[in-house]
Amino acid sequence: MIKVVIIGYGNVGVHIAQAFEQNEGIDLIQVYSRNKKTLASCPLHFATTCLLTTLKEADVYIVAVPDNAIETISKALPFKNKLIAHTSGSVALKTMDSKNRRGVWYPLQTFSKAKSVSFSKIPICVEAENEEDQMVLKTLGTLVSTSVQLITSEQRASIHLAAVFANNFSNHMYHIASQILEKKGVDFSILRPLIKETAHKINTLAPSEAQTGPAMREDSNTIKNHLELLEQEDHKKLYTFITQSIKHNTSQ
Amino acid sequence: MIKVVIIGYGNVGVHIAQAFEQNEGIDLIQVYSRNKKTLASCPLHFATTCLLTTLKEADVYIVAVPDNAIETISKALPFKNKLIAHTSGSVALKTMDSKNRRGVWYPLQTFSKAKSVSFSKIPICVEAENEEDQMVLKTLGTLVSTSVQLITSEQRASIHLAAVFANNFSNHMYHIASQILEKKGVDFSILRPLIKETAHKINTLAPSEAQTGPAMREDSNTIKNHLELLEQEDHKKLYTFITQSIKHNTSQ
Repeated sequence: MIKVVIIGYGNVGVHIAQAFEQNEGIDLIQVYSRNKKTLASCPLHFATTCLLTTLKEADVYIVAVPDNAIETISKALPFKNKLIAHTSGSVALKTMDSKNRRGVWYPLQTFSKAKSVSFSKIPICVEAENEEDQMVLKTLGTLVSTSVQLITSEQRASIHLAAVFANNFSNHMYHIASQILEKKGVDFSILRPLIKETAHKINTLAPSEAQTGPAMREDSNTIKNHLELLEQEDHKKLYTFITQSIKHNTSQ
Repeated sequence: MIKVVIIGYGNVGVHIAQAFEQNEGIDLIQVYSRNKKTLASCPLHFATTCLLTTLKEADVYIVAVPDNAIETISKALPFKNKLIAHTSGSVALKTMDSKNRRGVWYPLQTFSKAKSVSFSKIPICVEAENEEDQMVLKTLGTLVSTSVQLITSEQRASIHLAAVFANNFSNHMYHIASQILEKKGVDFSILRPLIKETAHKINTLAPSEAQTGPAMREDSNTIKNHLELLEQEDHKKLYTFITQSIKHNTSQ
């Protein structure tokens, strides 16, 4: 059994705690949150604390705090030479205080408190300063997921950037679509099968092969009509730039 | 049995023909393509022709040709007072020649020849000039799909525009993500669970509720790092505009 303490109980910490507490190979011995109320509001099956000085002895400390708090909390930990691993896509390993053995355990997924997710297929990107710690973090990964990879800080930064395009920016495209439909009294649900198929297609086709639509076929008449239909200036601007980018890519 | 002739055997025509020929309520009596080779290359189970003058008698003629060919082919049809329905999201019903009874039968989905799709959940947007024809087109819809709706030309234009954001533009975000990963030697498949979850989330959350990421939480440090990481100017530009648009939306 790997003994784990989770530091931070926000969006990511909550989901990791759920995955860990159900796992037979993991002993989730404690969860820390600086916010007493957060911990008090949940029906939890593990010990909790809101004092760093009362952190228990563990094999791994998973640091699931906001990116800009990682450095500070790593300095505030009241111990040294332990394995601590943050869960961020964009923060370099070396940002953490070197008084402890540093690692990264980054689950590449989008987490909302309102929606539970299965960890079994989430890619876990692992990094550590020595092989032994790498092995512990990899083992912790394989206990909850079938997809665990050693990833450097440099690669991870690019994966996180790519994830912003694939997740946040795609989701914003859905949002603009929902705004366009709302104005005509059409329910957003009419787009759900299309969105599902768009995401499904790239399991078998590269995104460039899967592309269709007016930009791809350089259908200037439809593009002109669409720009006339769009009412918001920022939507017109986005339509124009993304269309140019698709055309540019097609003509390469 | 509804007797159907399909005019056009491109991306959309091929998929409609597949759905119709397997359906017990539909008699697919003929498919027209101006291109003899297209028809000759497929193992087809229905009659074909490449001459408009040899089109057979049918209850509905489904016009599945490119948008810019719909008007021309509607004029070239050698008959009148028949029910003809095009399959385009962006072309108004009145674009077709009025010598025939005009309708629209628009399956809201993305079709690639390389990938088969199930019609059962594809929303079919139906429009016609009289109630009887509406009923025929609705029946044709319900034979292959559980989601059939009467949609005006004006609504359909907005649905098509929304679909470009939700499908083509999302897919372009996946493409940029794949380019970013490629430069660091990371396989695109690492993003597949994230893309699947992003699309899945909007079954239970509105896109605005599902949004996360640096733009949403106004994390200027990560945004700055991402812009430094991006190498292509058009990617930087897109990142900046989409981030602004997400922020603008969040602050509303």
